[in-house]
Amino acid sequence: MNQTLELMLSHRSIRKFTDQTVSEESVKQIIKAAQSAATSSFLQAYSIIDVRKPELRSKLKILCGDQEYVETAPLFLVFCGDVHRTKVVCDNEANKIGKNGLTTYESGWTETFIIATVDAALAGQNAMLAAESLGLGGVFIGGIRNNAQEVSDLLELPEEVYPIFGICLGYPAQDPLVKERLPESIVYSIDKYQALDEQALQAYDQRISDYYVQRTRGKMNDTWSHSISKKFASEKREHMLGFLQKRGFLKK
Amino acid sequence: MNQTLELMLSHRSIRKFTDQTVSEESVKQIIKAAQSAATSSFLQAYSIIDVRKPELRSKLKILCGDQEYVETAPLFLVFCGDVHRTKVVCDNEANKIGKNGLTTYESGWTETFIIATVDAALAGQNAMLAAESLGLGGVFIGGIRNNAQEVSDLLELPEEVYPIFGICLGYPAQDPLVKERLPESIVYSIDKYQALDEQALQAYDQRISDYYVQRTRGKMNDTWSHSISKKFASEKREHMLGFLQKRGFLKK
Repeated sequence: MNQTLELMLSHRSIRKFTDQTVSEESVKQIIKAAQSAATSSFLQAYSIIDVRKPELRSKLKILCGDQEYVETAPLFLVFCGDVHRTKVVCDNEANKIGKNGLTTYESGWTETFIIATVDAALAGQNAMLAAESLGLGGVFIGGIRNNAQEVSDLLELPEEVYPIFGICLGYPAQDPLVKERLPESIVYSIDKYQALDEQALQAYDQRISDYYVQRTRGKMNDTWSHSISKKFASEKREHMLGFLQKRGFLKK
Repeated sequence: MNQTLELMLSHRSIRKFTDQTVSEESVKQIIKAAQSAATSSFLQAYSIIDVRKPELRSKLKILCGDQEYVETAPLFLVFCGDVHRTKVVCDNEANKIGKNGLTTYESGWTETFIIATVDAALAGQNAMLAAESLGLGGVFIGGIRNNAQEVSDLLELPEEVYPIFGICLGYPAQDPLVKERLPESIVYSIDKYQALDEQALQAYDQRISDYYVQRTRGKMNDTWSHSISKKFASEKREHMLGFLQKRGFLKK
């Protein structure tokens, strides 16, 4: 197996870091790797904000659901879907070419939101794996959406830019087990969608329960099914549609 | 530089493939790598459909905007955002535990749509890079959203599953240049969002124009700014919001 596959298969979230800082050279490599991911129609519809000021970090820590490592990780990158830049560029072109050209930008299309979200995620996955290839570890922070408006204000995001996730990075000070994914038969199928393989799910639930018992020394004992149903009941971030529409997304 | 970074930095879309098939072993490795990506709250909210039947491929080719390689690529994987599975699992749990538990699943939240879209994209980027590490090349097909309802019918997707992108994969029969990304100063900033660096953009526009001239032997000569403003004027996929709402997404 090659190094890249090995790195992917050994991915797990790292939430505890040593004091070692991440060099500027490594940061540059991570950003360059992120930018090298594919991008829809070459739009590159995302921006990355590297939050360094301690006071911003401590505010973000609270806004992200009081996750300690958002404040303490050596590196905290916020990935944003960004079509503000696209709008500026299109408006510039329209001014050059004349309003009757093909360049009028229209805000609010759902398709645009999907493009920005996918572009940012492709870049984010490359950033994570690039960091791992350099000996770092990290964790995605969806909690950045808990208080999306406050985060946007804090980072001075203009309209049509929204924070999708953060990534904490640093040198690992823990070595957690890799968490087994769903059986291939549940996620992957040939030629058409397949109904849930309940038997495979049951066996998987048991293995995940064993994993939690092992990781927590018996304190936690939960199946995958039960853990995600708890998650879904509690974490809906009900403000997202209103927030996104206010920021110029998902209006049509 | 390590192998993983090298692979990322040399990524470019491959649209022409040799006749060599992709082994089942490689397909398994690609899917496993995709599944190893991070996933929000461990939901794994996506499904991958490997389209093999020639008649499905030729229909998809048309539905994706008449892109030849959708039909002819040795492998064509469709990545779908999937919370149908989540719903089934949550409903199962609710039935076990009783309706008064914390497990009631509610459809239609925008947050859920974001989770599914990001999860699928993280997996997709791993799939692409895993394939590249095995000597394959490929291209993302956003055109799968051109006729999202017809594609959903064809692949028998239930509600709360939607096709986000396809990936064509195979052994490269072309060797295009890597396309230079936006300058770091435009995509990346420290502590807050930065207004567009117009000077850096102008220089980049010129370099992209040079790239197109070189790649097309003078037939195409376009700046980045102009090419994306053309793109945005024409490709809005105006049906997406209606389609997604009909399928149970983005209703609140």
